[in-house]
Amino acid sequence: MSEKKRKIIAVIGGEQPSSEEARLAEKVGRELARQGATLVCGGLGGVMEAACRGASSEGGITIGILPGNNPKAANAHVQIPIVTGIGYARNIIVVQTAQAVIAVDGSYGTLSEIAHARQLNIPVIGLNTWVLSNKGQQDDSIIRAENPTDAVKKALDLATN
Amino acid sequence: MSEKKRKIIAVIGGEQPSSEEARLAEKVGRELARQGATLVCGGLGGVMEAACRGASSEGGITIGILPGNNPKAANAHVQIPIVTGIGYARNIIVVQTAQAVIAVDGSYGTLSEIAHARQLNIPVIGLNTWVLSNKGQQDDSIIRAENPTDAVKKALDLATN
Amino acid sequence: MSEKKRKIIAVIGGEQPSSEEARLAEKVGRELARQGATLVCGGLGGVMEAACRGASSEGGITIGILPGNNPKAANAHVQIPIVTGIGYARNIIVVQTAQAVIAVDGSYGTLSEIAHARQLNIPVIGLNTWVLSNKGQQDDSIIRAENPTDAVKKALDLATN
Amino acid sequence: MSEKKRKIIAVIGGEQPSSEEARLAEKVGRELARQGATLVCGGLGGVMEAACRGASSEGGITIGILPGNNPKAANAHVQIPIVTGIGYARNIIVVQTAQAVIAVDGSYGTLSEIAHARQLNIPVIGLNTWVLSNKGQQDDSIIRAENPTDAVKKALDLATN
Repeated sequence: MSEKKRKIIAVIGGEQPSSEEARLAEKVGRELARQGATLVCGGLGGVMEAACRGASSEGGITIGILPGNNPKAANAHVQIPIVTGIGYARNIIVVQTAQAVIAVDGSYGTLSEIAHARQLNIPVIGLNTWVLSNKGQQDDSIIRAENPTDAVKKALDLATN
Repeated sequence: MSEKKRKIIAVIGGEQPSSEEARLAEKVGRELARQGATLVCGGLGGVMEAACRGASSEGGITIGILPGNNPKAANAHVQIPIVTGIGYARNIIVVQTAQAVIAVDGSYGTLSEIAHARQLNIPVIGLNTWVLSNKGQQDDSIIRAENPTDAVKKALDLATN
Repeated sequence: MSEKKRKIIAVIGGEQPSSEEARLAEKVGRELARQGATLVCGGLGGVMEAACRGASSEGGITIGILPGNNPKAANAHVQIPIVTGIGYARNIIVVQTAQAVIAVDGSYGTLSEIAHARQLNIPVIGLNTWVLSNKGQQDDSIIRAENPTDAVKKALDLATN
Repeated sequence: MSEKKRKIIAVIGGEQPSSEEARLAEKVGRELARQGATLVCGGLGGVMEAACRGASSEGGITIGILPGNNPKAANAHVQIPIVTGIGYARNIIVVQTAQAVIAVDGSYGTLSEIAHARQLNIPVIGLNTWVLSNKGQQDDSIIRAENPTDAVKKALDLATN
């Protein structure tokens, strides 16, 4: 089952990205597919949709972990819709299903996913996303990438579990 | 994205089936793959593993919705492991991700999945599984199948959502 | 902390009970409070509301594990609303929070709770509820009670964990 | 049922606070109880335990939303243990059950709770906790408190839902 050995990488980010951020997400998706990785995301619009569009355009596999009860809420480029019905509690499933996470832009939902990933010791690569500090010290656990290709390279290098 | 249009059918059942029940489950998996359907299950052993083995042997796609935190708990024939970490609360995700459910054998975990499916109005086809009655009246909402081919045919006919 | 030592008993059942079933549920709630037990339920209407009304009328504590995002969906007799937002996946939390479960009437949601309880080896007492059989054999794991007082007595006797 | 009208405030924070942070958390718990608020937390040790100890010492009500399957994992000052079995996905239930959140110290689990609270538009008051910035701009959505009394006052003032 070669499928099983594919790496699974999460792409997380906001539902209302700028057009530049949507372009970044689409490139991330495309590059993941070229590298033979499966993409998992929250299945909805914005960054999620752009990343799925990119991956699909290169023949990649896309999984959408949906918060609601309706598979039709998935964006048009999700091939495998997982219908959780558990609301935003599904955020932790998105990151836990992946061996590494790429965050592009993003609001509080994305922040919850970054936090859950770090809590679970899953590497997070950031493109134009949150910066954290705790008690006066910057938290460097989000690994910064320079561009989508760099983000995918770093994610795949760190996706060792 | 032709993948997206594939029907997704859940196969549910116990972790300790008899050898006859495991054979039934494997045949269900094989027939689902032949008919072009994607199989979703709880990702572990017993009926789940037999069904995934059958589907994989015919080139089908298999999704395992795992209860724990470890993707390696998936049986060897799960291609897409979804790592929920939410324990048996994941049972409702297994059935909700499908358009129809085939139950083979099964214990209380399977019964919870049958109940959730019926609560959500998702058709359930039964092969050698639970019989329910409520307040003195038999509940006929589990549709009985005669054999694996019949079960798959009934599931696909009813998988209209 | 004497509160901590209180037994917690779940009352589960349908949202549309007959008036006789609602009366049974209210009596169960009342008797639980008299015996010093805390009541946990799904927090909504029907059997849940009747049981909470009974418990509250005797000064008992009532917990409602709500499926949605809105605490105001709780019935008027829930004192401690737990707002899960995880939909029917909350059913397993209702039973797992209790040391024993009393089922009054009920439809598929209730059946999922009975199944989860039995999967987790939590005792289930039944009043006018589901009857199960598996592969031609009746499943006797739901303990039948003759009336609300008997149900509460059996639940408290079995609530040993 | 006057119980129902009580405000519910979440106290979140790390399992390994400094002794100063534990003191802050205990004072927060004590002050919440004095003001008649119910405390909800994740039910485990560290900040959670200190806050529950404080609330209990003043006769307050304490709820612990546990990640695992075992009610005995609750700290000794949790009066109402909710046994979710859904792992860290329970974090969102902790904050969603509250009308406001007080964060004391905290690591990534706490950060996920802060993020979920903000995603759900629930006010977050911070004592010696995370500082966030997004795309070069500081995010001021965590309201800073000067001390435990101030934190409780701000939480109760903002707990209007």
